[in-house]
Amino acid sequence: MFLKSWLPIESDSHFSLRNIPFGIISTSSSPTPRPAVAVGDQALDLSVFAAHNGFSALSIIQPHQSVFSQPTLNAFAALGRPIHQVVRGYLQSVFSVDTPFPHVLKDNPDLQEEALIPLRLVTNHLPMQIGDYTDFYAGLNHAYNVGVLFRGPANALQPNYKHLPVGYHGRASSVCVSGTPIRRPNGQILADPTADPKVPVFSECKKLDIELELGAFVCKANKLGEPVPIGEAADSLFGLVLMNDWSARDIQAWEYVPLGPFNSKNFGTTISAWVVLADALEPFMSKGLDSDTELLPYLKEKREKNMPDVKLEVDLITESGATTTISRTSSRNLLFSFPQMLAHHSITGCPMNVGDLLGSGTISGVEQSARGSLLEQNENGKVSIKLEGGEERKFLEDGDTVRIKGVCGEEGDGLVGFGECVGKIEKAVRLKF
Amino acid sequence: MFLKSWLPIESDSHFSLRNIPFGIISTSSSPTPRPAVAVGDQALDLSVFAAHNGFSALSIIQPHQSVFSQPTLNAFAALGRPIHQVVRGYLQSVFSVDTPFPHVLKDNPDLQEEALIPLRLVTNHLPMQIGDYTDFYAGLNHAYNVGVLFRGPANALQPNYKHLPVGYHGRASSVCVSGTPIRRPNGQILADPTADPKVPVFSECKKLDIELELGAFVCKANKLGEPVPIGEAADSLFGLVLMNDWSARDIQAWEYVPLGPFNSKNFGTTISAWVVLADALEPFMSKGLDSDTELLPYLKEKREKNMPDVKLEVDLITESGATTTISRTSSRNLLFSFPQMLAHHSITGCPMNVGDLLGSGTISGVEQSARGSLLEQNENGKVSIKLEGGEERKFLEDGDTVRIKGVCGEEGDGLVGFGECVGKIEKAVRLKF
Ligand SMILES: [Ca+2]
Ligand SMILES: [Ca+2]
Ligand SMILES: [Mg+2]
Ligand SMILES: [Mg+2]
Ligand code: NI
Repeated sequence: MFLKSWLPIESDSHFSLRNIPFGIISTSSSPTPRPAVAVGDQALDLSVFAAHNGFSALSIIQPHQSVFSQPTLNAFAALGRPIHQVVRGYLQSVFSVDTPFPHVLKDNPDLQEEALIPLRLVTNHLPMQIGDYTDFYAGLNHAYNVGVLFRGPANALQPNYKHLPVGYHGRASSVCVSGTPIRRPNGQILADPTADPKVPVFSECKKLDIELELGAFVCKANKLGEPVPIGEAADSLFGLVLMNDWSARDIQAWEYVPLGPFNSKNFGTTISAWVVLADALEPFMSKGLDSDTELLPYLKEKREKNMPDVKLEVDLITESGATTTISRTSSRNLLFSFPQMLAHHSITGCPMNVGDLLGSGTISGVEQSARGSLLEQNENGKVSIKLEGGEERKFLEDGDTVRIKGVCGEEGDGLVGFGECVGKIEKAVRLKF
Repeated sequence: MFLKSWLPIESDSHFSLRNIPFGIISTSSSPTPRPAVAVGDQALDLSVFAAHNGFSALSIIQPHQSVFSQPTLNAFAALGRPIHQVVRGYLQSVFSVDTPFPHVLKDNPDLQEEALIPLRLVTNHLPMQIGDYTDFYAGLNHAYNVGVLFRGPANALQPNYKHLPVGYHGRASSVCVSGTPIRRPNGQILADPTADPKVPVFSECKKLDIELELGAFVCKANKLGEPVPIGEAADSLFGLVLMNDWSARDIQAWEYVPLGPFNSKNFGTTISAWVVLADALEPFMSKGLDSDTELLPYLKEKREKNMPDVKLEVDLITESGATTTISRTSSRNLLFSFPQMLAHHSITGCPMNVGDLLGSGTISGVEQSARGSLLEQNENGKVSIKLEGGEERKFLEDGDTVRIKGVCGEEGDGLVGFGECVGKIEKAVRLKF
């Protein structure tokens, strides 16, 4: 392990040497998006690093160096997990205090000057070009809580829930990177759900919500008609990001029968900027939720520890700046793992492509303070959430900012963190007819 | 109008001079996919045509000629409808019997030799790179028929149905071009839906179905947070294709609560190869279905004739070659138009991109013989469909081929047709665990 770096890294940094997450950056002086890794409070510009022979000591990557001058990580991801592992390991060794390659960067102030950029000067872009995005519903406690609100405890979970990872195809074009403002959507809502006949009004969304999720990127394609076996699914996963699946609950309630959520989900889905590689999460794998249901063989994983233990926090920051942590939970609260989601998704022969995004579904713990959506916290609008500074919320107001943080490990050992997944609510566009 | 061509065109050709549909082709001698138009029984290779100054008389296209050497039509589509109109009009004039530009092709046997390729020698590819695919449910008779089967006549249509074009995000990666074999999917099905508790089995799909639809391609992007007004939506539509939304009814029945169809739809969606431009359909626009429901202003179209009248046919061809036309209907059987679908899709600010595909939903007429899915024809498995040659079907069997044809106009006037949308069912992959 290369835990100590010659580069100063704060002990609470999400980007310790154990991490080495990949992202796409640009700067004001160099506006072309390009790959980078985050280390401490710096980004290492991989296009500059590669162009200055940074990878000269790593022969395996020589024929593939063009992946570091692409505007997305798709080409790098497509090289496969064995290569990701080697590149990450090499970069760890380059930054290590006793690096075997001091000439590469440690004793090369010119390249440090050119390739290391303080994160505060960096603009992040979507890390991958996302061909298709699928959102699952594997957060058992969330599904149960929402089911209780709408159908009561006896029928909270649908009969299929524990047999397969329920999911729906999402809107890839609406996935945006942390920091992108989210405009409150307009749409059809039912002002009075008890009225007969039911006649909708046109309105801005009045029940704007969050969903605390993890996202996983695919790094290996399969062909139409050729399922990904469960035993190979983990090798098809590039890494994870934090995700906020913004949701318009009033639009959803009216539109979703019988084909599922549509406009209530397609106005923005925010992901964190830095992809934490699957390999970086290996030390933090743990057991997810126990299931009382026997799975069909195509979903049975050999590995018991199939879920990364990411400690998750959701902050709500009002326009005045008052910050309240409204939820604290862990990604262990999932009933199905990402490899299971991928195996299920492709069991029909559905082709997955490099860059496809899989959302976990809302992650909620069992306690009130661990619920990953406002809908659960306010019990469908019945109770208010108290904020620091005296304000209250049921759903999000214009000017509110939601910030998700996620981290694995303990400070003393070096954190493997995701940074932030942030979005601020802008007021709805005013439409004239 | 340039109805007569110096190129021999049969009167029953789908690709009369009135049409000029665009597609992507390759040939065995020139395997790089590139744009073409179909005229009679020939494809005009636009990359060769452009490289040999075929567009020399059309100054407006000069700066954009690189669009004709792309592997998809996205770049051409992005030029916008005014340019599509000019290019189509120019190609009509080039092929016209009294062309003002005889030197371009009519009197240029060398270029004819090089740029005109018999359609039977052409391999078709997906015409567009599809970022996102959305399937609507605007076929009122289909929605009603299916609703009756599952909920009875009183509740056949959900309360939202006539207020908005119901739709769901589909799986873009599974869209394939006519001719691609479709492998019967495996998945979870409930062998006995009345059992308690409900425990699924792993099985190949036993209720493999079709859905007769039209697809529309988007040619104009809007930004996140900026809806496309209904008055501008028609300008965002490039053209139409035939579509078969293959559906696994038994997988669908088990999986679809509460988030909608997923695996039952993601193993393949077939589209016809030639995009019939919106302009080519203008003469065939007509009124769709009447609605007794007042629409919200964002869905109100000025134009009453908002639906192309495409005569549609579905043939089922068994392994033995026996061919039965199992459905005949018209695309007028839609309650919402494509511009309405686009306006609704983006009303939340959802970003649409060039190449996005919108499916209409299953198109069924009111008579038994006009139903666009087997589910409707067999009344959810109760009655058999009689085929030519004595065979019967409820759902599709291995080796069955489904061929959709669609055409506007009458033979004497020159047809504007879509060609075919074909897929043959392959047996399910045998999985070992
Ligand atoms: Ca979600
Ligand atoms: Ca459909
Ligand atoms: Mg897609
Ligand atoms: Mg997409
Ligand atoms: Ni030549």
